[in-house]
Amino acid sequence: MRIFHHPDQLRHAPLRELNNGEWTDYAETPARLTTILNALGEVEEARDFGLDPILAVHDQSYVAFLKSAHDDWLAAGRSGDAIGYTFPIVGRRKLSLARIDARIGAHAMDAATPIAAGTWAAAYGAAQAALSAFDAVARSEERFAFAACRPPGHHAGADYMGGYCYLNNAAIVARQAVSQGLSPVAVLDVDYHHGNGTQDIFYDDGDVLFASIHADPTTDFPFYWGHADECGSGGGEGATINVPLPRSTDWNGYRPVLENICARIAAWGAKFLVVSFGADTFAGDPISQFRLATADYRAMGAIIAKLGLPGVIVMEGGYAVGALGANVTTFLAGFSDQA
Amino acid sequence: MRIFHHPDQLRHAPLRELNNGEWTDYAETPARLTTILNALGEVEEARDFGLDPILAVHDQSYVAFLKSAHDDWLAAGRSGDAIGYTFPIVGRRKLSLARIDARIGAHAMDAATPIAAGTWAAAYGAAQAALSAFDAVARSEERFAFAACRPPGHHAGADYMGGYCYLNNAAIVARQAVSQGLSPVAVLDVDYHHGNGTQDIFYDDGDVLFASIHADPTTDFPFYWGHADECGSGGGEGATINVPLPRSTDWNGYRPVLENICARIAAWGAKFLVVSFGADTFAGDPISQFRLATADYRAMGAIIAKLGLPGVIVMEGGYAVGALGANVTTFLAGFSDQA
Repeated sequence: MRIFHHPDQLRHAPLRELNNGEWTDYAETPARLTTILNALGEVEEARDFGLDPILAVHDQSYVAFLKSAHDDWLAAGRSGDAIGYTFPIVGRRKLSLARIDARIGAHAMDAATPIAAGTWAAAYGAAQAALSAFDAVARSEERFAFAACRPPGHHAGADYMGGYCYLNNAAIVARQAVSQGLSPVAVLDVDYHHGNGTQDIFYDDGDVLFASIHADPTTDFPFYWGHADECGSGGGEGATINVPLPRSTDWNGYRPVLENICARIAAWGAKFLVVSFGADTFAGDPISQFRLATADYRAMGAIIAKLGLPGVIVMEGGYAVGALGANVTTFLAGFSDQA
Repeated sequence: MRIFHHPDQLRHAPLRELNNGEWTDYAETPARLTTILNALGEVEEARDFGLDPILAVHDQSYVAFLKSAHDDWLAAGRSGDAIGYTFPIVGRRKLSLARIDARIGAHAMDAATPIAAGTWAAAYGAAQAALSAFDAVARSEERFAFAACRPPGHHAGADYMGGYCYLNNAAIVARQAVSQGLSPVAVLDVDYHHGNGTQDIFYDDGDVLFASIHADPTTDFPFYWGHADECGSGGGEGATINVPLPRSTDWNGYRPVLENICARIAAWGAKFLVVSFGADTFAGDPISQFRLATADYRAMGAIIAKLGLPGVIVMEGGYAVGALGANVTTFLAGFSDQA
């Protein structure tokens, strides 16, 4: 399987995040990516497909904000990573705001996703890695390709960041696939956390099925989205599937849910698949509470590959850095078994 | 003028707030209240009007949350003040959430309004002070009474806290006045910051006019509300008036705006007035940027009193503790000049 990354992805390195009322070390580190790349061996550098495919998902004003936010933060006399502290929880609408703190909160769902000096470059690089993987598949060179994205993307909405995510790599690929006539497209999100940004972007969109297995949001981030009754609306009614699972779920609990959701993707008639893969379902993950073992990822990859669809795998979370390389390569091996 | 307070109001003492990306000392201190009470001299202890008038404004589930949040925080193994870090900026709806962090974010608009051990007792006490002031006026003992509320209230919505506010004292009085047949009621908010909670509570409500003069939200908290185009909706269309003013506004800039807004309140036919008074329009306020002098508050009080309406003055912000007593007594003196 061809594997893509961009060197700028390492330029994003916030120092801390606000979690459970305290600053903690930022869990989404550059070391996550170097570990994955080292384990994978032969990887290709992403080509640059420009801003257009990003702007097909994200608002122009949000992209402009991301590009300048850290400079604006420094210009306001601040230091370190930029974070917001006030959020438009009711009556959210587009406003022209002057103060950087106001603009951060307008484009964020949490106070846990800082903007550092290299954030825009890294997010842009990750999106280009995803687009490069899509390009490889669209040219039929491969049935599947892997984008070693980092920062991850699935919590980012059309005009907001959150949960370590800035640009929604999976959504960018899905939209690109639709624009190239490959719809209906399915996004299967198997990260530990619900992919609320991806869901939000396609919630009214009947061209893209969003299907997610994740930790119950009543106990786990992102809390407010990913509940089982969220099924899409308007033209996208029925094209959102959420299966929250309790903490401590192991492979015996996970596998039948995955098989069922794959059957629903097949029944829906998807022609192209985007997989949001997070390795934070791993038993040893420091911030998550499922109990999958490394070997389980091989079975997971095989079940998904059995769908027989072309597609792109996009890296999302996974914070047990020591096991991350093995978990990713094992997942991809399961894919290749079936390919 | 009769003045009310409740001793429990001093029990709320968070240690810190998140502001501009850093922890800072909590500006809304118990010392604010003791300074005001010392300057006022003769004050009365609030009577207890119970939960019903609070529940006429705030959701039962929000009140239950406020009561137990700090205990729940400690039970989850945390220490210190409880704050949230993730916020439902899209698709906000009532959810049954287990984790305390999820429940805080579900009921907050910022990460800057912590819940400490005595927060509920203090907020409840402040609401009772406001209700006691209303009761004194409703019995026609006085045309106006002052509630030395603290914590303040005007940023709190029906089911969320924010900006140092937990229960919306002004809204509780206004709703009580409506329920006793005194509508139409006007709430005049002259705090430096927009009273977004009060606005939100009455946005669709034609019985209560919300009129506010405040710092331009493009530069000042709460950023997302208080823009001039917010005018109410549905049955409340036209019953919201926002006049944002630029930083550095002094009394020469402020006075004609206040006179105009009072004329609009009179033209609207208000029968009862609630004044959300913040002394953070003072030139020496450490977190605000208007330039009113202590003597200006006498003129401000006189202009408002000239409306000839009965009503209640509810204390909101004001963080220049050394000048706070003088600013409040001067404002009330201006009122009494006209009474």
